[in-house]
Amino acid sequence: MLLLIPGPVSTHPSVRAAAAQDFAPWDDDVRPLNEAVRSRLLHFAGVGAATHATLPLQGCGHFAIEAAVRTFVPGGGKVLVPMTGQYAERAARLATEAGAEVVGLPVPNDAEADPAAVAAALAADPAIGHALLVYSETSTGIVHDVPALAEAAGHAGRRVIVDAVSAFGALPLDLSTLPMVDAAVFTANKCLEGLPGLAFAIAPAERLVACQGRARSWSLDLASIYQHALEVGFGSFRFTPPIQVLAALDVALGLLDAEGGPAARLARYTANTDTLMDGIRDLGLSPVLSRARQGPIVVNVHAPPDPAWRLQAFVDALKRRGVLISNFYNTAAPSFRVGCIGAVTPRDMARAVAAMGCALDEMGLRTRRAA
Amino acid sequence: MLLLIPGPVSTHPSVRAAAAQDFAPWDDDVRPLNEAVRSRLLHFAGVGAATHATLPLQGCGHFAIEAAVRTFVPGGGKVLVPMTGQYAERAARLATEAGAEVVGLPVPNDAEADPAAVAAALAADPAIGHALLVYSETSTGIVHDVPALAEAAGHAGRRVIVDAVSAFGALPLDLSTLPMVDAAVFTANKCLEGLPGLAFAIAPAERLVACQGRARSWSLDLASIYQHALEVGFGSFRFTPPIQVLAALDVALGLLDAEGGPAARLARYTANTDTLMDGIRDLGLSPVLSRARQGPIVVNVHAPPDPAWRLQAFVDALKRRGVLISNFYNTAAPSFRVGCIGAVTPRDMARAVAAMGCALDEMGLRTRRAA
Repeated sequence: MLLLIPGPVSTHPSVRAAAAQDFAPWDDDVRPLNEAVRSRLLHFAGVGAATHATLPLQGCGHFAIEAAVRTFVPGGGKVLVPMTGQYAERAARLATEAGAEVVGLPVPNDAEADPAAVAAALAADPAIGHALLVYSETSTGIVHDVPALAEAAGHAGRRVIVDAVSAFGALPLDLSTLPMVDAAVFTANKCLEGLPGLAFAIAPAERLVACQGRARSWSLDLASIYQHALEVGFGSFRFTPPIQVLAALDVALGLLDAEGGPAARLARYTANTDTLMDGIRDLGLSPVLSRARQGPIVVNVHAPPDPAWRLQAFVDALKRRGVLISNFYNTAAPSFRVGCIGAVTPRDMARAVAAMGCALDEMGLRTRRAA
Repeated sequence: MLLLIPGPVSTHPSVRAAAAQDFAPWDDDVRPLNEAVRSRLLHFAGVGAATHATLPLQGCGHFAIEAAVRTFVPGGGKVLVPMTGQYAERAARLATEAGAEVVGLPVPNDAEADPAAVAAALAADPAIGHALLVYSETSTGIVHDVPALAEAAGHAGRRVIVDAVSAFGALPLDLSTLPMVDAAVFTANKCLEGLPGLAFAIAPAERLVACQGRARSWSLDLASIYQHALEVGFGSFRFTPPIQVLAALDVALGLLDAEGGPAARLARYTANTDTLMDGIRDLGLSPVLSRARQGPIVVNVHAPPDPAWRLQAFVDALKRRGVLISNFYNTAAPSFRVGCIGAVTPRDMARAVAAMGCALDEMGLRTRRAA
């Protein structure tokens, strides 16, 4: 089955196979796995252990975003969130429930967030201490220019938290040039092509020291994870980790290295997206975004304007052909969404497009076909 | 490699194999997995969906204990914690950082917590609303009489949170007879013999409704997990789950059923413990606890009283013989600890004892041998 969803993604068989083993997390043969994963992730973020640390957190990306807010935003502190779509809404809710005061910056759902608008919002409210930025907004498929948005915040003397959940491992992120970033948050199961169950933040060591004791949660305290690592070693977890997920990620990071790193991965995802965009147009369908706005992570496609359209029936018909897409959509008008990430190539995307054509035929929905 | 540690445990090969697949969590073929796991866990707790709900939480047991405290203890509320050992200390820290006021009840580390002492502590402080009880204290190996302790709290009109992390699936827990329990918390990777990465709470439905909006954390809010299930179905997770861990647990629960349920599993663990206790005495070693006090989960053994003793060297010597035990200890005096849980039989324990004998010989530490 080819999973074409914006995570959990299709993984390489060697990644999945690594999960089918028993491990003791504190074992001297297992601790180096954790150390190596943390170190490699720093490398992919353009930084090293002299300035930054990787903080692994059991669970999902939302937990790590909440942990970043708790760790770096003082209780009651104000956070600016460009409202780029559903994942920005989730981040805003997480931050609010964690005790921050969220100031939403409206962003049209078919456009990139504007650094000038961020600068203006921060200038208008000096009490805002942080901006929380979604890099790849899964609901729309738009990639926002986080480096430029972070620069705007940094220029205004504010700190930044980056939701890089469906970005890290493919979209460029060089934290060595972004000193205003308190945390970049991501998970194992998106562009890193590992299994779900483990989230990460990369944060400056000096900020982790400066912000100790703020989190009002032991579980979701990145500074506590850092302190534990300083005391017990970077091979150690505070609490029992999903160790099979870590072992799988270690294999996945080896594959990322072998592919040529994030830039090469982005090139493959872009080729995947191109193949899909061309293919769906050939099927007579319209993507929701123009090619210029469309990011390389997830593509929303307008449902055929036919009363016979049923999303679940289309999903089921594709599944019978070995292709799995989401059975829900995030756009205002009916659509279907297709992920372009994971251990997937343009050849796989072409196969998926062919399956979509057959599924539409089966449903009596094929409208036209390019010559 | 035979893992003899109090979790993550040795798993059955079919459990691990279930993790080596890609899944989409919201897939119509995958949602029933989540529904079935939640329903089966209720059954093992002696309750049904009419009164209780299973709340799965990404992450580890500590996250779920914190979530239970946040969900059910009002902000600033007082919680009595019998201080049974290091896991009680951890629970107390979690509760404190989550905003509760913890009242510690001293408990000797070689004895069970006393229901009369709990009753007296609650009578002395009417402001205490909850008792947080550790069922199997991993640091000492003592199983505390949680049903009797909970009864004492219930009789005093107080609510109870049970840390059943290294208990659930083997030690008896019939929530139908314990209406004062707000939450019993456990994980997939202890007595349920699954993989780590997923924690659970079982809680009364009416309490989940009554305690909405208390958690001050979206991530760690059991009431929000329940509300989501009511709205979207019990096959759904709020955020991306460690779906391979769920698939592995589904297989593991089938094995628990096939074994005859928790009572049969407890009998096997007890036989494991008996084999180990007899074997280490034959090796001339002394368990830290008497047989009467010793629980069936984890056994601490006094280190040989010899200056040549080195825990890591012993662990390494055992590992070369295919047996993995913890490389740290939790007792005041030097010891080693051996888990008796997991997909492990008395035959495995006998093999482990033989390996310990060889390891001690190799280290020149064998003191005497029974005839």
